[in-house]
Amino acid sequence: MAEFDFIRAAFGRPHPRVPIWIMRQAGRYLPEYRAVRERVSFLELCRSPELIAEVTAQPIDIFGFDAAILFSDILLPLEPMGVTVAFGEGGPTLNPPVRRPEDVLRLHPYAPSEKLACVLDGVRATKKKLGDTVPLIGFCGAPFTLASYLVEGGGSWNFTEVKRFLYNYPRQAESLLGKLAEVTGQYLKAQIEAGADAVQLFDSWGGILSPELYRRFSLPYIRTVFDICRTEHIPRILYLNFTRPFLKDLAELDCEVISVDWRTDIKEALTIADGKAIQGNLDPHLLLGSEELICEEVNRILDATAGSDGFIFNLGHGILPETPVANVRLVVDLVHSFGRTT
Amino acid sequence: MAEFDFIRAAFGRPHPRVPIWIMRQAGRYLPEYRAVRERVSFLELCRSPELIAEVTAQPIDIFGFDAAILFSDILLPLEPMGVTVAFGEGGPTLNPPVRRPEDVLRLHPYAPSEKLACVLDGVRATKKKLGDTVPLIGFCGAPFTLASYLVEGGGSWNFTEVKRFLYNYPRQAESLLGKLAEVTGQYLKAQIEAGADAVQLFDSWGGILSPELYRRFSLPYIRTVFDICRTEHIPRILYLNFTRPFLKDLAELDCEVISVDWRTDIKEALTIADGKAIQGNLDPHLLLGSEELICEEVNRILDATAGSDGFIFNLGHGILPETPVANVRLVVDLVHSFGRTT
Repeated sequence: MAEFDFIRAAFGRPHPRVPIWIMRQAGRYLPEYRAVRERVSFLELCRSPELIAEVTAQPIDIFGFDAAILFSDILLPLEPMGVTVAFGEGGPTLNPPVRRPEDVLRLHPYAPSEKLACVLDGVRATKKKLGDTVPLIGFCGAPFTLASYLVEGGGSWNFTEVKRFLYNYPRQAESLLGKLAEVTGQYLKAQIEAGADAVQLFDSWGGILSPELYRRFSLPYIRTVFDICRTEHIPRILYLNFTRPFLKDLAELDCEVISVDWRTDIKEALTIADGKAIQGNLDPHLLLGSEELICEEVNRILDATAGSDGFIFNLGHGILPETPVANVRLVVDLVHSFGRTT
Repeated sequence: MAEFDFIRAAFGRPHPRVPIWIMRQAGRYLPEYRAVRERVSFLELCRSPELIAEVTAQPIDIFGFDAAILFSDILLPLEPMGVTVAFGEGGPTLNPPVRRPEDVLRLHPYAPSEKLACVLDGVRATKKKLGDTVPLIGFCGAPFTLASYLVEGGGSWNFTEVKRFLYNYPRQAESLLGKLAEVTGQYLKAQIEAGADAVQLFDSWGGILSPELYRRFSLPYIRTVFDICRTEHIPRILYLNFTRPFLKDLAELDCEVISVDWRTDIKEALTIADGKAIQGNLDPHLLLGSEELICEEVNRILDATAGSDGFIFNLGHGILPETPVANVRLVVDLVHSFGRTT
């Protein structure tokens, strides 16, 4: 079996065509996904290996992406630690939130192979369904991002509660982050053992910190996670929103790919993270724009990365639910036809 | 009269002590401000020259800041263009929002000296009240940031509407931004003529764009504004949140000071914007933290900028309403005593 373009690009090895996948490619913008969700709730879907495999494969069949990403949610690993996670219309809520130093004590590490068996069965079912078509990316949330959800008790606009906690109880925050690093590292390792061909760690909210405090409250725990799940031949990807201020630090991580947001100059990223592959970085909102501007921006990114063996096309953040399917097809076609004269 | 430390620092000239002021220093965290607001509404306050002078001077009397910033709101210049602005509990709302290309046609430039006379009278009253104690900073919102409010119809979490507008109707967006640049440039010029000793342009939301599109939709209009209000001896400051990806572009602007967010490495900022002064960059949330961490981070910034004649201490964004007054006093004292042995 020939090695996938996505895997070759992740390791910076020559490959014939720029690979593309899109964060949240299995999701609400797809009518086929919404049809499944009419039959089951979000949590039922996340816990059914067969449905996980079905929706994970949908965008591969529809668009011909070069990699599948497991359909799941970054908050699933939190429930077995001792918190209730509910997915409502207004976003997720976590109860009770972590607000006092002593709240950290009631959260416990656990063995993901047992408590998250349905997700791991989902990995196996998806691998079976995908066969040899495309590689499967497993994922989880970075410790800092998960800690943000735990302290805020859900999503947040300005992250006042998590910062209040970090800046008043730094040592207890470090204890919480250590527990989360252990769980998420073991969780990614279990996904790899179940068949994942690559793993991505989502530090969606780490970019709310100053670089100084990112080095204290996020980076060391990312290192622990990547240490635990380190395996030859399995690329490890870090996604960080608001990437640019942190690029030099990320360049020194022991991982294969840095996934950057749309504010990051993609050429600077390739230069600063020399030796690593770069993934990104179209603004997801461009897919709500005109065909003309989409073509302009996709081609600008392709031109800027032409000649690099370590580039994977993606968005700079997850695809928006209101994205027209036709625009996704346009981007995939532009990327796949890039550099071809026929 | 000796030149103020703040003005000397803005022009990169030697001065005895690091100057400090704080964005939104006249505001809700202050009991003295809240007492005024018990008597009048936000808009009544914004339109009363006497009360503007009173609340603008409050933080100077209380903390000994090195500059006062006019109490006002960046949305005031929008109403005379033909939109209704209301300030409610959940933030401002603008009606009707700009959503279709033809909506741009109904917004008109105007003469700020007439339509915003109460603000300009506020500048004069404040100058009179401050006397020779500290310089007064005038300000307004950058064209892109004001356009964001106009299209969103208020604040926003992910700016979907303004991006949808820009990415579908770029030419009409440019027409809107051109009108805003004319109004804001004239408005800053009028504030200077009324007595402002410095002006700051707030591009609070420009950082939601990719650098490529920032160069198209924000930078050219900032240039127009700074062109219009260019005056010898009056420093022009640009504040941009999410500063780092845009620093090289900002360094080339014709202005005196770049005010950076807390994600920006302050040493990198001084290097990249060589020849300009830098203002910033403590995370406002640190003022909700422990005294120990506040001291650590303030001293880190002071150490990193020691030896530069072009540094003004500030936060990386506006002060939070829940900030304890004691922590503001702590920061001012740390900054003012820095480098002194007695």
